[in-house]
Amino acid sequence: MTSHVEFADFATTLADAASKATLPLFRSGIAVDNKAGSGGFDPVTEADKQAEAEIRTLIKSTYPDHGIFGEEHGLEEGDSDYLWVLDPIDGTRAFISGIPLWGTLIALHDGKTPIVGLMDQPYIGERFIGVDNEAYLERGGKRKLLKARSCKTLRDATFSTTTPELFETPAEKQGFDILHREARLTRFGCDCYAYSLIAAGGIDLVVEVGLKPYDIQALIPIVTGAGGVVTNWRGEPADQGGDIIAAATPALHAEVLGLLKPLAKAPPSPQQDR
Amino acid sequence: MTSHVEFADFATTLADAASKATLPLFRSGIAVDNKAGSGGFDPVTEADKQAEAEIRTLIKSTYPDHGIFGEEHGLEEGDSDYLWVLDPIDGTRAFISGIPLWGTLIALHDGKTPIVGLMDQPYIGERFIGVDNEAYLERGGKRKLLKARSCKTLRDATFSTTTPELFETPAEKQGFDILHREARLTRFGCDCYAYSLIAAGGIDLVVEVGLKPYDIQALIPIVTGAGGVVTNWRGEPADQGGDIIAAATPALHAEVLGLLKPLAKAPPSPQQDR
Repeated sequence: MTSHVEFADFATTLADAASKATLPLFRSGIAVDNKAGSGGFDPVTEADKQAEAEIRTLIKSTYPDHGIFGEEHGLEEGDSDYLWVLDPIDGTRAFISGIPLWGTLIALHDGKTPIVGLMDQPYIGERFIGVDNEAYLERGGKRKLLKARSCKTLRDATFSTTTPELFETPAEKQGFDILHREARLTRFGCDCYAYSLIAAGGIDLVVEVGLKPYDIQALIPIVTGAGGVVTNWRGEPADQGGDIIAAATPALHAEVLGLLKPLAKAPPSPQQDR
Repeated sequence: MTSHVEFADFATTLADAASKATLPLFRSGIAVDNKAGSGGFDPVTEADKQAEAEIRTLIKSTYPDHGIFGEEHGLEEGDSDYLWVLDPIDGTRAFISGIPLWGTLIALHDGKTPIVGLMDQPYIGERFIGVDNEAYLERGGKRKLLKARSCKTLRDATFSTTTPELFETPAEKQGFDILHREARLTRFGCDCYAYSLIAAGGIDLVVEVGLKPYDIQALIPIVTGAGGVVTNWRGEPADQGGDIIAAATPALHAEVLGLLKPLAKAPPSPQQDR
């Protein structure tokens, strides 16, 4: 296998740039945009936009043929299969509440799969990185190889999801209710941090719905590099987002997939158009 | 007013001792006790017990006439009105899940009210301290004076509570539903960290039920030192625990108290015995 460490190292440069834009505004009483207009509360900060702009500039100067897809500024196609997939502040609600469980998500997709994933939490000073089938945590100049827990059954699992209210349709609610009832312990409120904690051996299962590609791609190499499994509720690759299962072990993933697959939405595939 | 800085400084010594017991076991795959027996999942770690034992030893050697009340080892009465009130790991579920939002809670009660409160999060390296009507955050050798936000209405408030499932009785559920529906934003999963974020200006309102004295006493001087208000649902002092309202401003507190007081439980007072 070709090593992708070069790209992982570059991703850390991008995370450094992002943190210069995000961190000074964390807990600073910044103004909050309201993307959703007068209705819901969908906060996006100036920090988010500025960080993504700075990341884009760096990518274009270093890899001018790479494409870029980010939450704030959309898709810029490149002349190669490589696509950087970005969410400068995943967990904007945590960010504006002063809770240090938001993260900067940076992935590199090679046209088939995310080959590098980075989740940076600059306030705590933690950087989770997945590359070349390994995952590690960098903090305070030290690097620690990560290994997910050996939890093999839902009954023994610590389950996390950002909020019960993520689950809106009857099938989504049914799926959440099963997991919440059967899991040993449920924790709310962690956004991208929960996936990183699968790699770090704190959480065994994260299930969420309605994710965008930039919400999940960076987390896939982190979870799988530590031995975990990430798919959608149909058991397909999760890189295009949607409804997600991330589990610490193949056995736990298989059990949860068995429960959720009957509740999965139909794929948005060409077959639907026939 | 007599300054209590001497006691606050001693509390930081206690927090240092506690962190030596707790931090090495955080994310280390420690064994988890089950206080609740075969039923619910009530994790308590060896770290929790060991930290409290070390704190008790330090208090007895420095202030032999002070009493001690802690979650793990109960009440030891002293020969003065001073009572140290301790919870070495508040948020044990967060702790065992690898989520760095647990905290070591240390309060000193003078027989009337908590005069010193400290919340220590040693993994992040944050220490929130309330004393002498001020609150500050110590991190990385720096001390920052804290001021709660100016949020005056529930409609503008960021509301936090550990989990919706805390609210079990119909009146508790009704109270939660009102706050969750009317608040601008709700965040789950923060335990003691949410109260500290009132002081730090990230969260405006925390409402919880069924707290023990050691769950709340340390947080009272932190919230009130930053300008906030903490009472129970009847509007009484919160130092004996119970059902709690902690708000960033007197105006917000008054609005929420008006909503929750009709739902408050009767006080466990001598009047009930008449």
